[in-house]
Amino acid sequence: MTATLDTDAVLRVRQQVSDLHAELVRYGLVVWTAGNVSGRVPGADLFVIKPSGVSYDELTPESMILCDLDGTVVEGAHSPSSDTAAHAYVYRNMPEVGGVVHTHSTYASAWAARAEEVPCVLTAMADEFGGPIPVGPFALIGDDSIGRGIVDTLRDSRSPAVLMQNHGVFSIGKDAKSAVKAAVMCEDVARTVHIARQGGPLVPIPQESVDRLYDRYQNVYGQPGKA
Amino acid sequence: MTATLDTDAVLRVRQQVSDLHAELVRYGLVVWTAGNVSGRVPGADLFVIKPSGVSYDELTPESMILCDLDGTVVEGAHSPSSDTAAHAYVYRNMPEVGGVVHTHSTYASAWAARAEEVPCVLTAMADEFGGPIPVGPFALIGDDSIGRGIVDTLRDSRSPAVLMQNHGVFSIGKDAKSAVKAAVMCEDVARTVHIARQGGPLVPIPQESVDRLYDRYQNVYGQPGKA
Amino acid sequence: MTATLDTDAVLRVRQQVSDLHAELVRYGLVVWTAGNVSGRVPGADLFVIKPSGVSYDELTPESMILCDLDGTVVEGAHSPSSDTAAHAYVYRNMPEVGGVVHTHSTYASAWAARAEEVPCVLTAMADEFGGPIPVGPFALIGDDSIGRGIVDTLRDSRSPAVLMQNHGVFSIGKDAKSAVKAAVMCEDVARTVHIARQGGPLVPIPQESVDRLYDRYQNVYGQPGKA
Amino acid sequence: MTATLDTDAVLRVRQQVSDLHAELVRYGLVVWTAGNVSGRVPGADLFVIKPSGVSYDELTPESMILCDLDGTVVEGAHSPSSDTAAHAYVYRNMPEVGGVVHTHSTYASAWAARAEEVPCVLTAMADEFGGPIPVGPFALIGDDSIGRGIVDTLRDSRSPAVLMQNHGVFSIGKDAKSAVKAAVMCEDVARTVHIARQGGPLVPIPQESVDRLYDRYQNVYGQPGKA
Repeated sequence: MTATLDTDAVLRVRQQVSDLHAELVRYGLVVWTAGNVSGRVPGADLFVIKPSGVSYDELTPESMILCDLDGTVVEGAHSPSSDTAAHAYVYRNMPEVGGVVHTHSTYASAWAARAEEVPCVLTAMADEFGGPIPVGPFALIGDDSIGRGIVDTLRDSRSPAVLMQNHGVFSIGKDAKSAVKAAVMCEDVARTVHIARQGGPLVPIPQESVDRLYDRYQNVYGQPGKA
Repeated sequence: MTATLDTDAVLRVRQQVSDLHAELVRYGLVVWTAGNVSGRVPGADLFVIKPSGVSYDELTPESMILCDLDGTVVEGAHSPSSDTAAHAYVYRNMPEVGGVVHTHSTYASAWAARAEEVPCVLTAMADEFGGPIPVGPFALIGDDSIGRGIVDTLRDSRSPAVLMQNHGVFSIGKDAKSAVKAAVMCEDVARTVHIARQGGPLVPIPQESVDRLYDRYQNVYGQPGKA
Repeated sequence: MTATLDTDAVLRVRQQVSDLHAELVRYGLVVWTAGNVSGRVPGADLFVIKPSGVSYDELTPESMILCDLDGTVVEGAHSPSSDTAAHAYVYRNMPEVGGVVHTHSTYASAWAARAEEVPCVLTAMADEFGGPIPVGPFALIGDDSIGRGIVDTLRDSRSPAVLMQNHGVFSIGKDAKSAVKAAVMCEDVARTVHIARQGGPLVPIPQESVDRLYDRYQNVYGQPGKA
Repeated sequence: MTATLDTDAVLRVRQQVSDLHAELVRYGLVVWTAGNVSGRVPGADLFVIKPSGVSYDELTPESMILCDLDGTVVEGAHSPSSDTAAHAYVYRNMPEVGGVVHTHSTYASAWAARAEEVPCVLTAMADEFGGPIPVGPFALIGDDSIGRGIVDTLRDSRSPAVLMQNHGVFSIGKDAKSAVKAAVMCEDVARTVHIARQGGPLVPIPQESVDRLYDRYQNVYGQPGKA
């Protein structure tokens, strides 16, 4: 394995994953040490994840933990995030996923505490999530329950984010940055739709319009060749 | 067209439009890459707008996109904002408008998700908006529907901002700075009035008082000769 | 009047009033150019106030406006705040007041849009306000109506802050810093009590306890000789 | 006592307690001068606490106040926090406690204004608090009432935080950092659960699952040998 660990790919993912935690802080998705980002190492059965219980100010590329797809530490001076098993399960079972993010962001977790999906009433939601943000099962940490709940829910959904009941958000993407974007957008629309509904009945978006928005955004938006 | 592109006017608008995006960030009106500012080039059938899918931290005057009033790129290395057609429609049809802003700011978008106008119950709203903030139609991206919805709604209103149903806010002004101010004030009053109504019935402001406040603010407030 | 203008007292108040606007920004009480602080010049019939329509980033001691107690500009290159007449009325009619602050802070303005006082259900409110935060009348800008509404309401109250109906907050203090503190605390308790009441019935504090808390805080709290 | 005051232990606690106030500011738990952190000096009957009425920007290790367990000042140029008697009572009666924090953080204080405990509907709450966050009695400042209310409530609870009725939060920990973490997490879950319940009925977590989560988190989470 040592040969693999020396590659530039690992160093690049260490840097990306370390840096992306600052986006969780910037958008107010995390307090203290509660959230984490991971990224798959392209071309290897490995991923990089946050160390457990370390503050966001102290994160560096070097302090990130490199794990294999069983969640076993391959390289790292600290213990990996206590959510490592869930990340590993996603990477093992969704080969198209290159990044995973977990947060307890406020509004998303509020929907999760009611086990209620976020209805799709905003064009930005149709763009990014292609419909409602679904709810996954209540699952305890300690085995594959959380990972299985994430994968079973997201496999049947266009959404890159799942609200795990009584817990928080897991989001996925083709790389760590895309998964962070999904986590940021998930909290943003969870907040807007919550506030909207406090004021009265929501206006639904017709399914056909949701479909057209989702198709356009996934295939046209942004700079050519960029996420 | 090259002669026009060399003028100081284009450079000034590039700088203004680039800088004004920081105000969207400062006031929490945008997440990730979701909002955009544009400004008309004085004396030319051109406007400057944000590139698509580029983060606010990376914006520079040089990376802004110069478009003609059909929304065709005249100068720029990136694709323009995916909302460019809506901005262009406004500039074509409202010659008095020198700036346009689009956001998905939270409270304004919450009113939009209910297709409900924000009632005018604050003197600051009477000052800036001259009455309620109106709702525009549900419109899909891809043709002139959004632009037409904006113009049709704002033509019949004193308000410089419109809540596009299930979508977000478009605001206008005599220049880009005025349009940003309208976007900032729109979110501010959308939030205050939402919270006010959660607590019980609102006290209306008599129409005559709304009229007097609007007239004074538009003609007296601020430094002489300034917005 | 020139002799008076040269004194250190004027310079000190210019500096204090300029600096204190940063506290309005820090605590999120203002957007764009909407709030203002003023301070009386000790030993003179003069006060210093924010210029109108100037952004908080651009404020300097030199750009502050010096006015007499009729609100007439004595020294200053800009127009004074459009709320200057209200500040002047307070200084003319409440000689014990050395500072005045005006904001449209969100939660306080939300109570004002319902013309509802904030009930005293927090010990911090009893400390600072000695009871509920009262509501003043609806008053239009342009004459002494706002100033008279502030003074008439605060004369009968322990509270250093008043919620002007459909408008916002005016707060007073022995100096500008105390008035800013009252504005900050007013928004803080307006927010907490709003949120508390959204969740169910509030528990009142017995009047005798309110009285004891108010008396202790006004006479004992903080460093000896400090506000 | 002079010999004790010279030790490195006092200097370390002065530094920690001074620094930790920045976390209260960072997480928005305090406005103006309203909250305070204290830390017990290991191996001595002493604790370090914030001076009264001093702004968070001006705090330094040197300006912290050293008190004995009766709350009497041993070393310090200012008056100690007006909440010193409550901190002292906790240290006298809970020898396992090494840190105490007091705030009026918004959402926690909102539950306290209704005298309502925060129900345990989030796995992060089960982890940190082991069940609901309990409510302590209404108590006036000036004697041991507040301290006794804190101790009597927390002795019967797994929770390291108590909502003092109509007042705010007191939290405890094995050291000052742990008590700050409890204060941060208390506000975070008080906010999430408030928002969740505004949207409809909460889904409870079975007691057995709460117990398993609490046990794992207290014994396994984080880096070996760290809080």
